[in-house]
Amino acid sequence: MPVGTQGTVKGLTIDQVASTGADMILGNTYHLRLRPGHETVRQLGGLHAMSGWDGPILTDSGGFQVFSLGALNSVTEQAATFRSHIDGEKVVLTPEHSIEIQEALGSDVAMVLDHVIALPASKPEVEDALARSIRWAARCREASTLDRQALFAIVQGGLDPELRRQCATELASMDFEGYAVGGLSVGETPEEMYAAAAVTTPHLPADKPRYLMGVGTPRDLLENIARGIDLFDCVMPTRNGRNGLAFTDKGPIKLRNAVHREDTQPLMEDCPCLACRHSRGYLRHLFIAKEMLGPTLLSHHNLTYYGRIMAEAREAIQQDRFSQFAAEKLAGWGHRPVPLA
Amino acid sequence: MPVGTQGTVKGLTIDQVASTGADMILGNTYHLRLRPGHETVRQLGGLHAMSGWDGPILTDSGGFQVFSLGALNSVTEQAATFRSHIDGEKVVLTPEHSIEIQEALGSDVAMVLDHVIALPASKPEVEDALARSIRWAARCREASTLDRQALFAIVQGGLDPELRRQCATELASMDFEGYAVGGLSVGETPEEMYAAAAVTTPHLPADKPRYLMGVGTPRDLLENIARGIDLFDCVMPTRNGRNGLAFTDKGPIKLRNAVHREDTQPLMEDCPCLACRHSRGYLRHLFIAKEMLGPTLLSHHNLTYYGRIMAEAREAIQQDRFSQFAAEKLAGWGHRPVPLA
Repeated sequence: MPVGTQGTVKGLTIDQVASTGADMILGNTYHLRLRPGHETVRQLGGLHAMSGWDGPILTDSGGFQVFSLGALNSVTEQAATFRSHIDGEKVVLTPEHSIEIQEALGSDVAMVLDHVIALPASKPEVEDALARSIRWAARCREASTLDRQALFAIVQGGLDPELRRQCATELASMDFEGYAVGGLSVGETPEEMYAAAAVTTPHLPADKPRYLMGVGTPRDLLENIARGIDLFDCVMPTRNGRNGLAFTDKGPIKLRNAVHREDTQPLMEDCPCLACRHSRGYLRHLFIAKEMLGPTLLSHHNLTYYGRIMAEAREAIQQDRFSQFAAEKLAGWGHRPVPLA
Repeated sequence: MPVGTQGTVKGLTIDQVASTGADMILGNTYHLRLRPGHETVRQLGGLHAMSGWDGPILTDSGGFQVFSLGALNSVTEQAATFRSHIDGEKVVLTPEHSIEIQEALGSDVAMVLDHVIALPASKPEVEDALARSIRWAARCREASTLDRQALFAIVQGGLDPELRRQCATELASMDFEGYAVGGLSVGETPEEMYAAAAVTTPHLPADKPRYLMGVGTPRDLLENIARGIDLFDCVMPTRNGRNGLAFTDKGPIKLRNAVHREDTQPLMEDCPCLACRHSRGYLRHLFIAKEMLGPTLLSHHNLTYYGRIMAEAREAIQQDRFSQFAAEKLAGWGHRPVPLA
């Protein structure tokens, strides 16, 4: 899922987002609660009407941003209280309020509010956040009123296999419409992240979507697909695109480098994106001259590239050759597959 | 012509530029000479190949930017010498070098280098710049080597009807492929500008394009079409679009204003642009949240709006009802037609 933090995938029109091959996009509850405000979004017809996106939209719960962006005041059993990073407004985010916001936004998939902590953390801290996340998940389920809005639970448990298993098993018994692996991509190594996904997915229903939140690099996609993940969201393709970095089968290309000045080649020969209609030399010029078109074109390229990785992975799985496919892609990026435990 | 200063119409992909209805775009010789450099543009296949624009491209001569942006060192009979606004590089811009640059850029229409001065100016200053501009036009004609590149001359003469007539008559006798009215939109009132165009166009061939450089507002388009102008370029639609201002039949709309917060209406009911698929409330949100999509959508709207004015003007002229058409449009913007002398 391309990330549409504030009701727009940065730098792209909604038609351009669709033309990357994306089926589903993500909106951020925290950001939209603060600006323009969820009641304003409701007034404007919800996220779909506002942005013009016809496909499914998933909204996160706000939990991750509260912990990463907001000036967090306190987490109690009742709520996370924080101050807005925009104007200092004090906001009390309960599980019920998170659902209320997500219902106003009108997303197709809402996420339960979870208690996110930074890693590494002590086992008691991880256990405490995990237990609270399960209780909050139950409260979200209770608060949910829209039949057409699916609710996904979020598995916590840090890097502890036993805690991950416990949390996944407990949430699976509560019968959500989908399950996320949360609390990762918060400071751990890639190998630790892959291990945490690997110990979690076997305890989640195989017939429901399994979503790894906030991940990741092209390598992370393939390594986690190998471990049973179906769905991802990440700002990497768009944020890196805005900064002049393009992902390719031969690894990333930094467009600002002088070597690209008079290079008439496209980023990739066979890529259908808007950037690959132009030369690397032109793309470099756009970044050096600080033209908006540079970020737009590279965001389109990177999302298209991510979309193609996912499409190729699906095809490889259907044809029972995923391991070979992943090993070849990873080799192009300078990596070997990490053995599956 | 939408303005593509640095080889890109700011904020839009080249497909989006085409979808505004634009037939022709402009590139700036001064900017492209400095960055990425005209030899780099040549190496990348010229402006068309670089930007992906299939239609005609006009390049200005650099004259206007030398006087408005560069730290101008001196103008002699031989050349204008200036320092780059980017890195202080000293550049000697002769008529011959201007043509050399424009040939490297590969535009379809090149402009002669002219001597632009600020208004108001004394009659001797205006006469001096005018005479030099005519001599430079002849040198440009001499220097031009590309058969496929048309060359347009530029009429100077400030606000003096007799000097405008003299300059137009002299240049017309030199048989250029088209003629521009230059040295306007540099501080004079709209009425002064209209009068200067009105005294110039009768002395230019009716079967060749007449181009008013760097103009203007929607009102300026219609008032100058009434005075025989065919072609315009201006950054107003894109620059204002980036700043949150949309042109409409009822005058400009400032999207940042709070009144638009929950407004579900589009900017205009019958506009085919990308912005008008969304509500004003969403557009306001994009500007308040500093999202790139806001500038992109409003640039697309304003260029589409300008393109429609021009298309409607052509149709009205063909149907012999231009005066009525213009009066109605002008009334919507709060203006009455300025009488034709």
